[in-house]
Amino acid sequence: MSHTVEILSVGTELLLGNIANTDAQMLSQGLSELGLNVFWHTVVGDNLQRAQEAVALAKQRADIIITTGGLGPTCDDLTKNVLAQAFGKKLVFDEDSAQRIRSYFARTKRPMTDNNLQQAMLPEGCTVLVNDWGTAPGCAFEADGVHVIMLPGPPSECRPMFQYRARPYLLSLSEGVIASHTIKLFGIGESSMEAQLRDQMNAMTNPTLAPYAKEGECELRVTAKAADDGEAQALLRPTVAQVKELFGDKVYGVDVPSLEYVVIQGLKEKGLTLGTAESCTGGLIAKRLTDVPGASQVFKGGIVSYTNEIKENVLRVPEHLLDQFGAVSREVAAAMAEGARQLLGCDIALSSTGVAGPGQDDWENEVGTMFVAIATPESTYVRALNLGNRPMRERLRTQTASHAFDLVRRYLSGLDFGN
Amino acid sequence: MSHTVEILSVGTELLLGNIANTDAQMLSQGLSELGLNVFWHTVVGDNLQRAQEAVALAKQRADIIITTGGLGPTCDDLTKNVLAQAFGKKLVFDEDSAQRIRSYFARTKRPMTDNNLQQAMLPEGCTVLVNDWGTAPGCAFEADGVHVIMLPGPPSECRPMFQYRARPYLLSLSEGVIASHTIKLFGIGESSMEAQLRDQMNAMTNPTLAPYAKEGECELRVTAKAADDGEAQALLRPTVAQVKELFGDKVYGVDVPSLEYVVIQGLKEKGLTLGTAESCTGGLIAKRLTDVPGASQVFKGGIVSYTNEIKENVLRVPEHLLDQFGAVSREVAAAMAEGARQLLGCDIALSSTGVAGPGQDDWENEVGTMFVAIATPESTYVRALNLGNRPMRERLRTQTASHAFDLVRRYLSGLDFGN
Repeated sequence: MSHTVEILSVGTELLLGNIANTDAQMLSQGLSELGLNVFWHTVVGDNLQRAQEAVALAKQRADIIITTGGLGPTCDDLTKNVLAQAFGKKLVFDEDSAQRIRSYFARTKRPMTDNNLQQAMLPEGCTVLVNDWGTAPGCAFEADGVHVIMLPGPPSECRPMFQYRARPYLLSLSEGVIASHTIKLFGIGESSMEAQLRDQMNAMTNPTLAPYAKEGECELRVTAKAADDGEAQALLRPTVAQVKELFGDKVYGVDVPSLEYVVIQGLKEKGLTLGTAESCTGGLIAKRLTDVPGASQVFKGGIVSYTNEIKENVLRVPEHLLDQFGAVSREVAAAMAEGARQLLGCDIALSSTGVAGPGQDDWENEVGTMFVAIATPESTYVRALNLGNRPMRERLRTQTASHAFDLVRRYLSGLDFGN
Repeated sequence: MSHTVEILSVGTELLLGNIANTDAQMLSQGLSELGLNVFWHTVVGDNLQRAQEAVALAKQRADIIITTGGLGPTCDDLTKNVLAQAFGKKLVFDEDSAQRIRSYFARTKRPMTDNNLQQAMLPEGCTVLVNDWGTAPGCAFEADGVHVIMLPGPPSECRPMFQYRARPYLLSLSEGVIASHTIKLFGIGESSMEAQLRDQMNAMTNPTLAPYAKEGECELRVTAKAADDGEAQALLRPTVAQVKELFGDKVYGVDVPSLEYVVIQGLKEKGLTLGTAESCTGGLIAKRLTDVPGASQVFKGGIVSYTNEIKENVLRVPEHLLDQFGAVSREVAAAMAEGARQLLGCDIALSSTGVAGPGQDDWENEVGTMFVAIATPESTYVRALNLGNRPMRERLRTQTASHAFDLVRRYLSGLDFGN
């Protein structure tokens, strides 16, 4: 049978705009992957009457209600009380949950006030969803033909609680298993990717293929439903292979978190070290590399040379190149990468120089003119970018850094550097 | 009279989790500042029946309905059709809007298909909200005692359309003007800030005081309503002064975008230059400084010394300090800052070293143990941080960078470095 889901979020902070409802997004993505249809998102504040009305409505129109927020002591456990009442359930004290709350406070060395134990009051007969990421346990029950799942509001709790607690519960409702793979691409626009796949995507039912775009990167999620994981994987395999073939070396990985992650892993595998020399990206390349846990095994360090003085004195970029071509040039990009490779004593060095805006530089280069270079034991290669001149400093810098990573992963995979 | 608002977003992409509902957050913030009470967020997909049901419900419970999305040709202008029908209004062709749509396509050199002109069909008698940021015009009307405002969905259109089109319309509903100031704080926890202000905040009606927290920083927004701006500012002044007095040097600015912005501005005013030497933050300090347009006037550059080798060979940190105290130590933090100041030839240098996780370092320092140092012409100061051991690498690094900025702004303001 086809389920319809309502996500009901309780929290005045959402209605005041203090935070965006990222829980609803995360849940919607996860639920879609399970083949469940999310038809409504509703947000109400910490207000008894409006919460009651929202629950009554959800009960009438959805057969799965997933709530976020309103479970902690600061809101008097509003959500739990309202849901229990709407489905005619008593709240009973759960000693296991109480014990976990006590030890959470002991572990984090914070004083526990009595109202925290209220969180151990749960609807009778429910499945307790143990919260290893905070204090408020979640819960799930079925009543009046509706499945109710309550999750805590803070995204750092809601995300793992969905992934490790609610998702298995929901899987048990559907027959069979859901499996998916995410194919990551760089160097192709979202619209171009969609245009090449649209007919195919629309025609597919199992597996399905869904595109996502962010910050100049694209991904395709392939999802299959089958009786068991082996069968699901068998369904997924040909589609993954087909997409990889279609997009060739634009595909930088399957089920990998990011381009920088692929770079760090590749360097580890080959036993090579990396260094950076950044101008326009101003530290972003190094920052993203060191976002990857364990980067220190292969990333030695970098120079942010935001002035010509540092390019000359620290990176040893020849003065005549700066005079002749300007800091934003193919020649200086190459010299920066080579200088960093020398100074930092690393196998590979990356550099960036360009105009991130808001204004042109002294040489009248347009905003969006960027060069990224890679210096390797064999040679130095420079990629010239023209990222357009819309005033999006942050985005220009992010894309420039991604292009630098693309050079490394191409070098490590023995691909040409072609744009 | 007190208005109640429902924000109704139409878009299947929200229910699939492709994007978060940032429009609803942005609108909620803006509406709260206007003194309007947002009681509901509702999201439905591009589905006629569910859109009709949602509108019928909103009409019944709210007296201001603001919609986002569902205005463009890809969804057959769903929102406009449903709202017009629910309020008994015909859609009529608006020649001015049609002209703007034609010239938008001419200006952006894209081909215009006929269905784009559908966007010029608007509810009879409405106020057209001219869209200078995209093709679909918004509109506003009052009927059956309810104010309806329709805005386009893409955040890059929705935000300016609210700011420059819907906000003035809503202001005309309320008498007088709204003005606000944002006071930014660093070095105080949200709960501590709230505890000191809670009674006062609850007692205030005009101006109002609202706290926001993000990434280890806090802000307080003071908002006043009055007949004109002069009167509003007069209402705001004593509260701003009082908050500044209460939190003293924890306040780093009023109506400023960020700590790094304050640092860059302060350096410009004093004619001083800055450099960085980063270990645990891995480029984040430099990245955040260079997020500020115009940073190149005062930020010379930095070193990311992710290995001891770079600390020794580039930053000239004495080997015996690394051997005796380890890289994560007060002594090495100081030597890094001093080394960077020397190497980069800048007036002030910042450094960071610490354990961002996920694991302890070789010296068994716990995750969250961090040192930030500032080297100035007069002296070097090291701040030791213990940021807790929860596995939040990104957050630890962000907070460490903020502490480094805090040292600079304290130095520039002649304050002591006290934590």
